[in-house]
Amino acid sequence: MNAPSAPAFEDVLSAGGEAVRELMDQVDSQLVEVASAYGGELERAAGSTLAAGGKRLRPLLVFICGHDAGSLRRDGLACAGAAVELVHMASLVHDDVLDRAQRRRGRPTVYAATGRAAATATGDFLFSRAFSLLAGGEDGEQISALSDACLALARGELAQREDAYSRALGVERYLYRCELKTASLFAAACKLGSLAAGHDDSATESLSRFGHKLGLAFQLVDDMLDVAGEVDDTGKQRGSDLLDGTVTLPLILSLRSAPLLANFDLRSVNSREDAERICDRIAATDALEETRSRAKELVVAAKLELGDALGPRLVELLNLVADRVLERRA
Amino acid sequence: MNAPSAPAFEDVLSAGGEAVRELMDQVDSQLVEVASAYGGELERAAGSTLAAGGKRLRPLLVFICGHDAGSLRRDGLACAGAAVELVHMASLVHDDVLDRAQRRRGRPTVYAATGRAAATATGDFLFSRAFSLLAGGEDGEQISALSDACLALARGELAQREDAYSRALGVERYLYRCELKTASLFAAACKLGSLAAGHDDSATESLSRFGHKLGLAFQLVDDMLDVAGEVDDTGKQRGSDLLDGTVTLPLILSLRSAPLLANFDLRSVNSREDAERICDRIAATDALEETRSRAKELVVAAKLELGDALGPRLVELLNLVADRVLERRA
Repeated sequence: MNAPSAPAFEDVLSAGGEAVRELMDQVDSQLVEVASAYGGELERAAGSTLAAGGKRLRPLLVFICGHDAGSLRRDGLACAGAAVELVHMASLVHDDVLDRAQRRRGRPTVYAATGRAAATATGDFLFSRAFSLLAGGEDGEQISALSDACLALARGELAQREDAYSRALGVERYLYRCELKTASLFAAACKLGSLAAGHDDSATESLSRFGHKLGLAFQLVDDMLDVAGEVDDTGKQRGSDLLDGTVTLPLILSLRSAPLLANFDLRSVNSREDAERICDRIAATDALEETRSRAKELVVAAKLELGDALGPRLVELLNLVADRVLERRA
Repeated sequence: MNAPSAPAFEDVLSAGGEAVRELMDQVDSQLVEVASAYGGELERAAGSTLAAGGKRLRPLLVFICGHDAGSLRRDGLACAGAAVELVHMASLVHDDVLDRAQRRRGRPTVYAATGRAAATATGDFLFSRAFSLLAGGEDGEQISALSDACLALARGELAQREDAYSRALGVERYLYRCELKTASLFAAACKLGSLAAGHDDSATESLSRFGHKLGLAFQLVDDMLDVAGEVDDTGKQRGSDLLDGTVTLPLILSLRSAPLLANFDLRSVNSREDAERICDRIAATDALEETRSRAKELVVAAKLELGDALGPRLVELLNLVADRVLERRA
């Protein structure tokens, strides 16, 4: 089986120790099991998505936040990690249907492989499976937390489409969208791990706030990588956000400062070459530096949420994840 | 507030007594609450679906199967009823996106009102809310049962699209699809009610099997109504299945017997007039009588699942529901 996480988080896995690594392997096995339960017509479709990997950062957060769970709680922790990843995947599968996206992570999307009906059904299935994985848990709090994150994802998806191609988009609105689309599920991941480990309310709230801010930082870095990432690292062409009309922070900031960009119509970006040209123009402003500096501030703020009460080992691991989120190139 | 159920089930409500009627009202309130929690951008979209009503037959089954639940379990029962209805609605919302359907129950669909992105997100939201309503329950069995029904719905959706426009479709395959698309959620409704009331395993299994067979009968009647229903009763034009390529039992049976239908291409049915003409031809064969007779057999078989151990009042109410499913005209 392939390593479940991209190199950026390899040292987090090492620092997390055997327990975290085993849990990450368990997630992969559970995702394979989910795909095979799908049966006949749909197994191939779901299988290709689930196998496509990705960073598995959300389950990693679940496991780190729950790393001191006793052995009795270990299965619940593994299920929570898989559940969060399934929700993430379900939302990607539906996004790809809406975007008619052909490739993700270097493979055909479920939409491309099976068409919109099968892909819509696959996403629905993945959502429902996420919740059934949590059904064995002791309390309903995990399910409520995950359901709230799903609500945020749905609202974020809609907000992003409402904002498409809008030159008037402000920083506040952009950040609000990032909260819905990314930060909520990161916060839920931390909360689920904390609940599985049986931490007290105050610890769980700190960890949720950490996850929320880290998720914002993650999204900002993602949006920078779409403008200036190396295709060898990211596995995708630059400028995909521009091509589908998603207005992100680097673009917002560069529109303010660059006369060259002042009059262009976002809908006129129709080819990969157009998109790369605009990316170069954005990169020529100080928009990427400012975006990085905002991401860094968010990471600092995230770390400040981690009080001493959480214990030095947990704080150390989460600090390491936060650093890697900022440094990641993929 | 409007009566939550169509007249066909009005006498079931009367027979069910105050408790069932109150629970049905609670479902309506909970659905309104879910819609308002959706917030800003999406409330209107979800609100219009939730308000559109429908027969609310699935929650009715939950409440009848759980009708002897003590007052302590009453809230759990109400949540289970709302959860089953939300899953049903979520699947309708996504179906309408896939079919680009403009109207349902005489109102614009969520797709028509808000577009495919908002409608996809709305469906996702409704799915996740269904599960969060069950989060307060005592055990995970309800969630597993509902998740299994979601899996069946997703597979049924796919099967239906694979079978579209196929003249070669057999009765077995048609019934298999009905199991996935309809019977599974009916069975889950009965199971959830039974679990909420704390019935033993044997009772819960009987009730699930009853629900399964009743769901099949319901679908057969639905497919008859699409061929020969009165638009004043059903609120929709005849032949909608033909127009979207859904091959149902009346068509399958009529293709076997009617020389007039022998050579027509299902894809050539493109207008309401075409569809009504084919409906008339189907109705001129004995396909509708045979479909009704199969539905009747299924209702008889469903009733036979109800052993004496369930108690006379429960059996009486379920028998009444089964009769109404067969007689319904809408």
